Amino acid sequence: MRDFATIFEVEFLRRIRSRAYIFGTLIGVFAIVVVTALPSVLGNALRSSDNLTCKLAVALAAAAARTKRIRLTSAVTVLSSDDPVRVYQQFATLDLISRGRAEIMAGRGSFIESFPLFGYDLNDYDELFAEKLDLLLQIRAEPVVTWKGRHRAPLKSQGVYPRALQQPLPVWIASGGTPQSVARAGALGLPLAIAIIGGEPARFAPLAELYREAGRRAGVAPEKLLVGINGHGFLADTAEAAVDAFFAPYAEVMSRIGRERGWPPLSRAQFDQGRGPRGHLMVGTPDEAIAKILAQHEVFGHDRTLMQMAVGDQPQAAILRSIELLGTVVAPKVRAELAKREVSA
Amino acid sequence: MRDFATIFEVEFLRRIRSRAYIFGTLIGVFAIVVVTALPSVLGNALRSSDNLTCKLAVALAAAAARTKRIRLTSAVTVLSSDDPVRVYQQFATLDLISRGRAEIMAGRGSFIESFPLFGYDLNDYDELFAEKLDLLLQIRAEPVVTWKGRHRAPLKSQGVYPRALQQPLPVWIASGGTPQSVARAGALGLPLAIAIIGGEPARFAPLAELYREAGRRAGVAPEKLLVGINGHGFLADTAEAAVDAFFAPYAEVMSRIGRERGWPPLSRAQFDQGRGPRGHLMVGTPDEAIAKILAQHEVFGHDRTLMQMAVGDQPQAAILRSIELLGTVVAPKVRAELAKREVSA
Repeated sequence: MRDFATIFEVEFLRRIRSRAYIFGTLIGVFAIVVVTALPSVLGNALRSSDNLTCKLAVALAAAAARTKRIRLTSAVTVLSSDDPVRVYQQFATLDLISRGRAEIMAGRGSFIESFPLFGYDLNDYDELFAEKLDLLLQIRAEPVVTWKGRHRAPLKSQGVYPRALQQPLPVWIASGGTPQSVARAGALGLPLAIAIIGGEPARFAPLAELYREAGRRAGVAPEKLLVGINGHGFLADTAEAAVDAFFAPYAEVMSRIGRERGWPPLSRAQFDQGRGPRGHLMVGTPDEAIAKILAQHEVFGHDRTLMQMAVGDQPQAAILRSIELLGTVVAPKVRAELAKREVSA
Repeated sequence: MRDFATIFEVEFLRRIRSRAYIFGTLIGVFAIVVVTALPSVLGNALRSSDNLTCKLAVALAAAAARTKRIRLTSAVTVLSSDDPVRVYQQFATLDLISRGRAEIMAGRGSFIESFPLFGYDLNDYDELFAEKLDLLLQIRAEPVVTWKGRHRAPLKSQGVYPRALQQPLPVWIASGGTPQSVARAGALGLPLAIAIIGGEPARFAPLAELYREAGRRAGVAPEKLLVGINGHGFLADTAEAAVDAFFAPYAEVMSRIGRERGWPPLSRAQFDQGRGPRGHLMVGTPDEAIAKILAQHEVFGHDRTLMQMAVGDQPQAAILRSIELLGTVVAPKVRAELAKREVSA
């Protein structure tokens, strides 16, 4: 551990310019994930910065070359403003490089800067997503595709290569809580990731029900209806240390995003409420995170927890420790407890 | 060397399915390039298979995470059927990950399968390239872009991020020998890679002249007018070993491509001619390659030699040895000889 962190500091942080920092961090974090053997179901606990969503496959490929076990997930690919052929090709490439560890987490996009950049109209927000998801699923199912839609050139018996190693390449639907998105995921039999970055998680419970009900009505096998909860979290040996490392950069990012959307700045009181037992933030000790995940499991019966740790510019060493605690303490204890409950149920 | 190759065999080749082979090879080769300290100017001696051109940045990112010195070049990005915003974003990401080792080698595309896949008309073959190159260079020059063209949504003061670490991110023009492309590269002051995969290299000499003349007329500084020769090559300790490893897979690929274009299959006699002193193939011993590069230098005065070794399914161990010979024997001797000539000139 310490050796790696030392090498990492010398190699990446002191010598490079600040622009390269986030990528140094990204690669370094993945490297340490291997050391601590973070279990695959917890997936990638990171996202790129706001502006990097369309380059995720590139960053993940660097992680693939340094890791062997963790899954590499996009969280999220803004499919609406991207091209399903390119997205499939990139993640199939990533899947081959990582020998079957890639997955696409597709969403309509909470950040919408990419729409005008690629010439899309926000009035088509939902139609763009529905149409592109349809094409992505068709490409995923078979290499030779014939397809026609409103927002992309048609395909006539054209081959899309390379093909992913996993059959099928996992495609999750990430939703911020729109009933329409959730019901669509259920009806299509796709796993659903609910992003909860504010408010009380328990209030999102009806969405999980809606998802499962939509799946049942469409005749989807129950074991295909997976639910994931994506949120913000940060672990340290003491709650104080977690708060100290996480709060300031997090508050800066959330306040900046809020400003763009006309919200007031994030207050410390709001943050503390989010950290509380009913709040959405998992910032604290491993025991606190374990209690929160287990409490959420009683509400959602969910299958996966994804914790985004780098929300802003948290210190490198603290992120590495947070990941280590997630992989070595939180994940095994949550699994053991859930297995126990299943036996006694 | 042997240790790495052994580990590589165990890790990658025996356990994985054949679909993952080319990527295993790709990553493995980059890893060994570090071991042998292949000098940066020789760049990436590899290309992905025919179908992978648009996913190159993803594959190169995996290489970036395993290497420290070699340059990572696309050779080639078919810019005509791609989107300059995405291409820039992907290679800027790669540049950050590799801390300034990325470059784009852009071409109009010899393989044209990607045109209908993304809804482009081959009648616009050259206009597509010219327009997209214009946008790419504008994005490269400044983050906030205003641009309008025929083949892509316009941009109105929109930011393109992330930004590359290198300023500017290198953009080479790769040409199969069309005078128009070569003159354009010169006039724009962009480095030129001439791809010679058949015929006598000396016949391409007028192109280098045309390029330099176009640059001179446009007022480009002579030191910016770099010429690279991209070709097929394969090195081994004996000429027989090089031929044995290279010929059969190469002939299969070239005959297949030829079939699609209405050419006769590649014969052994043609291959032997290509290997001869005036031919384009550098398949043989390091000494033979050194002699050929130096002879070509008298004709072109070029600045870079890029040798594609994997043309088809050459054996892994032979590719690794070929790269090692390129990095440890051929490159230093060529450099030393050219330095000597410069002093005596």
